[in-house]
Amino acid sequence: MSQVQIIGIDAIPEIQPNDALAEIILRSAASSQITMLEGDILVVTHKIVSKSEGQLVDLTTIEPSPFATSYASTWGKDARQIEVVLRESARIVRMDHGIMISETRHGFVCANAGVDASNVPGPERVCLLPKKPDESAETLRQQFHTALGFDVPVVISDSWGRPWREGIVNVAIGVAGLVPLTDYRGMTDPWGLRLQASVLAVADELAAAAELVMGKIDGRPVAIVRGYSWQSGVGTGRDLLMDSRRDMFR
Amino acid sequence: MSQVQIIGIDAIPEIQPNDALAEIILRSAASSQITMLEGDILVVTHKIVSKSEGQLVDLTTIEPSPFATSYASTWGKDARQIEVVLRESARIVRMDHGIMISETRHGFVCANAGVDASNVPGPERVCLLPKKPDESAETLRQQFHTALGFDVPVVISDSWGRPWREGIVNVAIGVAGLVPLTDYRGMTDPWGLRLQASVLAVADELAAAAELVMGKIDGRPVAIVRGYSWQSGVGTGRDLLMDSRRDMFR
Repeated sequence: MSQVQIIGIDAIPEIQPNDALAEIILRSAASSQITMLEGDILVVTHKIVSKSEGQLVDLTTIEPSPFATSYASTWGKDARQIEVVLRESARIVRMDHGIMISETRHGFVCANAGVDASNVPGPERVCLLPKKPDESAETLRQQFHTALGFDVPVVISDSWGRPWREGIVNVAIGVAGLVPLTDYRGMTDPWGLRLQASVLAVADELAAAAELVMGKIDGRPVAIVRGYSWQSGVGTGRDLLMDSRRDMFR
Repeated sequence: MSQVQIIGIDAIPEIQPNDALAEIILRSAASSQITMLEGDILVVTHKIVSKSEGQLVDLTTIEPSPFATSYASTWGKDARQIEVVLRESARIVRMDHGIMISETRHGFVCANAGVDASNVPGPERVCLLPKKPDESAETLRQQFHTALGFDVPVVISDSWGRPWREGIVNVAIGVAGLVPLTDYRGMTDPWGLRLQASVLAVADELAAAAELVMGKIDGRPVAIVRGYSWQSGVGTGRDLLMDSRRDMFR
């Protein structure tokens, strides 16, 4: 029997710029009688990371460009928010049906360059992705190590749509302390066939699993994954980004 | 605290055509002292469903078309296997780098129309997707209901690649007994903002979570998800397919 537990951490307060995120997460866990164990993985929604890093934009300070104004008026959007999306985009991959799929400076391809108004205090503010999600994950990992005395890998997640499929799913945008892809290529299945296409995006699956205890409106932005045999190593969220030369949908 | 458990079921034997799959799964669970509980969800890898439905193709019976032969010779593939992929495809979405992304007759968009040689007995056989994965899931759900006396939703999974990202992740291709999308639109976040884009593909997240206990080479094709508050209803895997008119990557 193989068993994995996903444990949502309650009572995490609204995060402010410069908050000590690891300390707050551990305090919230302790207040629910949750003790972190060796082998645990922490999945942290990017939004609280972004908030702790001050990655919020006050829309009243934004002067939209003519392009943003024109697009927003066509599709009934807030021109200032579109302007922020454009500023966060290195490239627009698709613009259609009022949806903008951007490639961000990080190399992520996602709707609205990850700019999001939900779960942000105040009607005139939007949240950006962390500037360097892998560095954010590594900072958290080091803070957990200092507080706990053992290594806890960290996955920073966001919820993205996918081509061809309805709905959004959690994916990993920052990783520290675990290898995000498990490579079965060259191993053999029980019938002796060498596996050829079997590289599993385990960090994305960990993020998706964590979402099952998070929810969108009940404010549970952190989950522990317990019992999963992660592969230790210097993994990064960048490892999950497909090389654009091999990408057929870029 | 919100908690979800993912429990892999061991000792599932090699499945043969016409095997009573639900019975075999429950017997294997019992042999590991796992008792199914009300509220559990079962995630079943499509491969054992396909095997029980006889969805295996003997490549020695396949006469490749000139197109399949030419493509296979360019890319160093087995022309007979390419022929099977083409027969399972309603449409080719992309063909490049030796990778074929097909739209299947079900409406799925995935590599090789879901045709796969791994974890199949014999070097000359490939496995197809179930003909009607939602019906397969519903049949299993009814069999579990009969055996257990309570409802167990069933998710049938496969592992697919994604545009823009490395690695494959488990997704739901057949669903019975739960609503695969959780719609938060119109609800408000803790700050009073109405959520606009928040439809979560929970069936895909359940499939991804299950993969954490499955693995590719250790033959654990079924997992129980315990403790997740699923929304009961007539859900189908088709609900997860984006309408091609709204799809920007079709």
